[in-house]
Amino acid sequence: MKKESIGIALLGFGNVGSGTYRVLEENAALISKRVGADVCVRAILVRDLNKERSVHAPAELFTDDFEAILGNPDIHIVAELMGGVEPAVTYMERALASGRHVVSANKEALARFGGSLTERSQELGLMLRYEAAVCGAIPVMNAISTALGANEITRIQGILNGTTNYILTRMGEEGAPYAQVLKQAQDLGFAEADPTADVEGHDAANKLSLLIAAAFGDTISPDNIDCTGITGVTKDDLDAAAASGETIKLIATADKENGMLRASVRPVPLPSENPLARVRNEFNAVLISCNMADDIFLQGRGAGPLPTGSAVAGDLLEIAACIVRETAGRALPTRRLP
Amino acid sequence: MKKESIGIALLGFGNVGSGTYRVLEENAALISKRVGADVCVRAILVRDLNKERSVHAPAELFTDDFEAILGNPDIHIVAELMGGVEPAVTYMERALASGRHVVSANKEALARFGGSLTERSQELGLMLRYEAAVCGAIPVMNAISTALGANEITRIQGILNGTTNYILTRMGEEGAPYAQVLKQAQDLGFAEADPTADVEGHDAANKLSLLIAAAFGDTISPDNIDCTGITGVTKDDLDAAAASGETIKLIATADKENGMLRASVRPVPLPSENPLARVRNEFNAVLISCNMADDIFLQGRGAGPLPTGSAVAGDLLEIAACIVRETAGRALPTRRLP
Repeated sequence: MKKESIGIALLGFGNVGSGTYRVLEENAALISKRVGADVCVRAILVRDLNKERSVHAPAELFTDDFEAILGNPDIHIVAELMGGVEPAVTYMERALASGRHVVSANKEALARFGGSLTERSQELGLMLRYEAAVCGAIPVMNAISTALGANEITRIQGILNGTTNYILTRMGEEGAPYAQVLKQAQDLGFAEADPTADVEGHDAANKLSLLIAAAFGDTISPDNIDCTGITGVTKDDLDAAAASGETIKLIATADKENGMLRASVRPVPLPSENPLARVRNEFNAVLISCNMADDIFLQGRGAGPLPTGSAVAGDLLEIAACIVRETAGRALPTRRLP
Repeated sequence: MKKESIGIALLGFGNVGSGTYRVLEENAALISKRVGADVCVRAILVRDLNKERSVHAPAELFTDDFEAILGNPDIHIVAELMGGVEPAVTYMERALASGRHVVSANKEALARFGGSLTERSQELGLMLRYEAAVCGAIPVMNAISTALGANEITRIQGILNGTTNYILTRMGEEGAPYAQVLKQAQDLGFAEADPTADVEGHDAANKLSLLIAAAFGDTISPDNIDCTGITGVTKDDLDAAAASGETIKLIATADKENGMLRASVRPVPLPSENPLARVRNEFNAVLISCNMADDIFLQGRGAGPLPTGSAVAGDLLEIAACIVRETAGRALPTRRLP
């Protein structure tokens, strides 16, 4: 038996939900070819059915009824793209309990409940993936758990938040004060009206917690990560660093020595040899130190509808390809020909 | 039924073979935990059983008889790490025909026969992986076929050869002439006694051909890639580029517009905004331009026993984990807890 199409439900149609929809729609032909079946959005959960939306999808896809999604046998994968802890966590648990694979972009929910959700998915023989929750389009979760899988990872260093990297870059390059650059970032849509989660480092701490789980197998709550934001960084600090050939970046770091995990998010002056020193504006990057592969550096867009949608869709494709194989009675994946 | 251990045969015990052996031995405990079974080297094929070797492995593992490897039912995966086209291709074909999954680090053989070997592996429901053949430890093949899988890739640009990047970097930074730096690179072990394949760009063309197959689905022989090496690059060229804020790098490029593939390997002056401009010495890097994820940049060690062994072992782990799942009757992979 061949499965003709794999059905997706999107929970949420904000930046990430609508970006994922666009990736799946605009690249539908190549996705179908790569998966061996169509990957179709069959439902989109929203709170307000009457809201005006900038990305258009057929009206019949929208629903405000999560139970209707669980009741639809043609939905195989649920993509939780709502953000926030609840009801997101409950929806993910219920999707798994109903036999659906789950993809999520929700770093806040996963940093707190990713461990228990992963255990639950494994008990049920289902897949839970969340590449998009850490650094948007950068394939860092995937690299850690596949190509770098034979390594002991000794340290992770990252610029995991685009808003603060944009602010620090503009402050350093224009000599402008924090408040002025923050305002500029807000006007450009790079910073939220309430920027606390970004500028105090909490967003980076959430992502670091997910990287730590993947790289070291340790569960650490983002609340227990030593966290200093960028609100105290002054033009004088940036100038002093620049005078010594260094660049101040908000760096999330985790390392493990003799079984002891250390993790922090804080502004750090980086020497110019560190590739993170040269990551400008809203870009994200991660430097992964491995005991065999040495240092691997990954850089790209950590946010935005399409880059984040690309990561969500990448997870959806991998799961969809597994479902197609399973339905065809083939257990082993062969590397696809594009 | 649970498979207690997955058996590996290494074909070749030079730099890559011995590096892979060390990765599997030194990280054996974590690999066993991640795979859910031990991953054991059960045979090492060499030409000369009496050769003195700097990496030590139990004498009983070494054999000069490929038929003995095919006849050993405890070998599940064959890792072809010999280099050269023959007998490597024949050994890979015979390993597949005998029901073994295959991993290879052999860019030269794969650039010419990767397409037919992939087809054969798919017909047989077996896996053929070759992350190590392109840019050593950098997880580029994996990223293209998984996390970036929902993208149309529009362009690939890469520094795919460490020897030439080392030579160009030293020439630019020390103002030394080509011949002197080449000699220095040979003394340090970064360049071969006969450097032709590196300095004329053929090694980069082999890797570009593999990237093109993965990214665009096109088969192009490395012989048909427009290829200019670095032997004609002078100190004056480097100085002139530097005066305009540019850095000359040996760049492998492929893009596809209106269905038309263009591919080349040649020295290119890069503006400082291009992250490839700042990749120094023997490091490799790839810039992947995607229609949804935008630009993704990956940098790391492209050669060396342990970095290349890390990539070979990453492929072995993924295949081993699939065999363990299949044996346990579980078709679907769940993301491992490390």
